[in-house]
Formats: sequence, C-alpha cells, structure tokens
Amino acid sequence: MTPSTLDALIEALRCLPGVGPKSAQRMAYHLLQRDQRGAARLAAALGQAIEVLRHCARCNTFTELEVCERCANPQRDHRLLCVVEMPADLAMMEQTHAYKGLYFVLMGRMSPLDGIGPRELKLDRLVERATDGVVEEVILATNFTNEGEVTAHTVSELLGARGLKVSRIARGVPVGGEIEHTDIGTIAQALIERRSV
Amino acid sequence: MTPSTLDALIEALRCLPGVGPKSAQRMAYHLLQRDQRGAARLAAALGQAIEVLRHCARCNTFTELEVCERCANPQRDHRLLCVVEMPADLAMMEQTHAYKGLYFVLMGRMSPLDGIGPRELKLDRLVERATDGVVEEVILATNFTNEGEVTAHTVSELLGARGLKVSRIARGVPVGGEIEHTDIGTIAQALIERRSV
Repeated sequence: MTPSTLDALIEALRCLPGVGPKSAQRMAYHLLQRDQRGAARLAAALGQAIEVLRHCARCNTFTELEVCERCANPQRDHRLLCVVEMPADLAMMEQTHAYKGLYFVLMGRMSPLDGIGPRELKLDRLVERATDGVVEEVILATNFTNEGEVTAHTVSELLGARGLKVSRIARGVPVGGEIEHTDIGTIAQALIERRSV
Repeated sequence: MTPSTLDALIEALRCLPGVGPKSAQRMAYHLLQRDQRGAARLAAALGQAIEVLRHCARCNTFTELEVCERCANPQRDHRLLCVVEMPADLAMMEQTHAYKGLYFVLMGRMSPLDGIGPRELKLDRLVERATDGVVEEVILATNFTNEGEVTAHTVSELLGARGLKVSRIARGVPVGGEIEHTDIGTIAQALIERRSV
C-alpha cells in the first residue's frame, strides 16, 4: 500500500555511505515534508555533478576541466608532486599555505584485504605522471594508517626504481590518524620535516 | 581552487537530516568515485518524488493519488480513525494486522518549544476529517514521548468537545519509546488494550 515513488526514493537514498533503511526513511520524509526545495537542489546538484565533473588528466582530482586550474597554474612549483589519498586531503594541504607544488590524488588507498592493489588504484597513472621529466621530487602524504603506509611504501618502491627522489611527510601527524582530521599546524610541520625514503 | 560543482553538491547534501560538512563531503566523493549510477538514480528518485507525491486528501499520508488506496478501500472499517505522527508509524501499525480501520497522519507532532502548535500541525484538518459523520472512534497512536503525549492530549480535547469517542492505544509501548522502533507484538497488544480518554 505504500506508494512506490516513496519506496523508490527511500531505496535510492541508501546508496549514500552510512545510510541504512531507517535513516533513508527519515531523510525521505524530511525532504518531502520539510525541505522540497533542498530536495530539488540536491537532485539538480547530483545531475550536474555527474554530468560535468571528471578527473583532472594530470592530478586526478575532480574538476570541470580537462586539466584543473591548479595543474595549469605556472605559478606552482611543477618540480614537486605531492601524493594524497582523497581531494579532502588535498584541500587540507592547501590550507597550510606551506606547499606550492602540484598534487596527485589517488582517489583511494591500497587495501590488500579488500583486494585493492596497485592495479585497482591505477598506480601506473601516477608513475606516468611522476616521470614526465619535470617532476623532481614526489612527496607522499597518504594517511598514517596501515593502508596509507602500505600505499606510501608501494609508491616509493615504484618511483624510487625509476630514479625519482621520494619523500614522506614527517610523522608529525599522529600515528593512526588521518590527514583530513589533523590540525593545520601539524600538517605544516610534517611538510617541512619530510624525510627521504 | 576546488571546483564549484563539487562544492554545490556537498552543500546540497547538507539538506539531509543529520548530515554535517564532513559527512556531506564523504558522501559526495563516494557517489562520484564509486557509485555514479546510484547518484543518478537518487537524482531521478528525488525529482520523481517531488513531482508526483502529494498528501492524501483524506489521511494526509504521501501518495501519488488524490485519495490513497487505503482510504478508498471499502473493505476497511471507515468508523475507526487512527491518528499517527508519521507514515513510518502507519506502516508499523499495518504490519500488526490487528487494525482494519483508517488513518490520519499528522506528519509531525506538537512541539511547543519549537513553536509547533495545533495551527502549525494543521489539526483543523484532522477535526474536519474526524467529523465526517462516518468516523465513530478516533484512536490516538502518537508516540509516548512528551511531544507525542501533548499531541494526543490536544487532539483528544479537540475531538472530545465534538462528541467523538477518543481512545489512546495502551501504554504497552515503553514510556519514552517511539512506535516506529517498537516490536510488532507490543504494538498489537497496545491496540487491543486502547482505553477511552
């Protein structure tokens, strides 16, 4: 007897991470009852994002352009390439104002237990990017979790074998912590104290 | 430097209840990176729901029709009207198979502290519905929270003054608990033991 349109909305909301059946129901009622404008805005934003956003051909982050503004900016130091897991990490690095180089966003991390290895993470694209002849140093700023460390180790082996200088931001970031949730001062310190690996 | 389309999506996701800036960011990355089909389905479901769903002219629940299938069903006992807060409560009542009457969904509850009184809850529509000359008994099945009890009390005064028999489902539902999260057996018992108010 429940209307199928409502069921479809509740079911569709469950594609959001961390949203179970009860939360999805609550969200659907909230949107329909109290925030139809928000729902319309969300529908439009989703459609627009799917339509317009793509991965930057150089740094792999989300952008509307073929090459994002940051990668196209001659003011940045193109000899430095900082590798991060997610765009949120990149945003935190930028907020430190302690780094003027470029980035490569992995859009994930190695997770052998989940079957995410170098191939699934498409590390060959990072290798290709880092060996463009301009990059001199690759700074690894993956998280200091087990998975982030495995990722950093794998990347350093791959790039070190190709004669690139590879460094890791200093362990000023608390062990087991995540960059996204670290204070800016700690990240700035970790950038300065990066060590060769 | 962050693309505005991505920012717009993250901002739009915050219209969901219980979703702060970090969750919204996580949801946006998840959808873009791992579940673009889910995102497209969600956008379509939102658009469809806003377009198609309305409130049943009789019971006020969400439906695609002018009058929902349940209210239009001659097999139901039209002399009984059960008042619930939300469609989720209605769904739980139905699952008990202990009730064959009709419903009125308030789509909320009185909350004096939040400025939600009888007018904001549009209790006049309930009064109009309950005084159609067919309804003989109104069963109050609002939550046994403070707000649900205030709502039940107000409704019983409004309808009692018009000579209607008003009952409250038995307090088999734990005090402070919510109907949506109660087991079906307890709800069935509470329906049977409803008392006149």
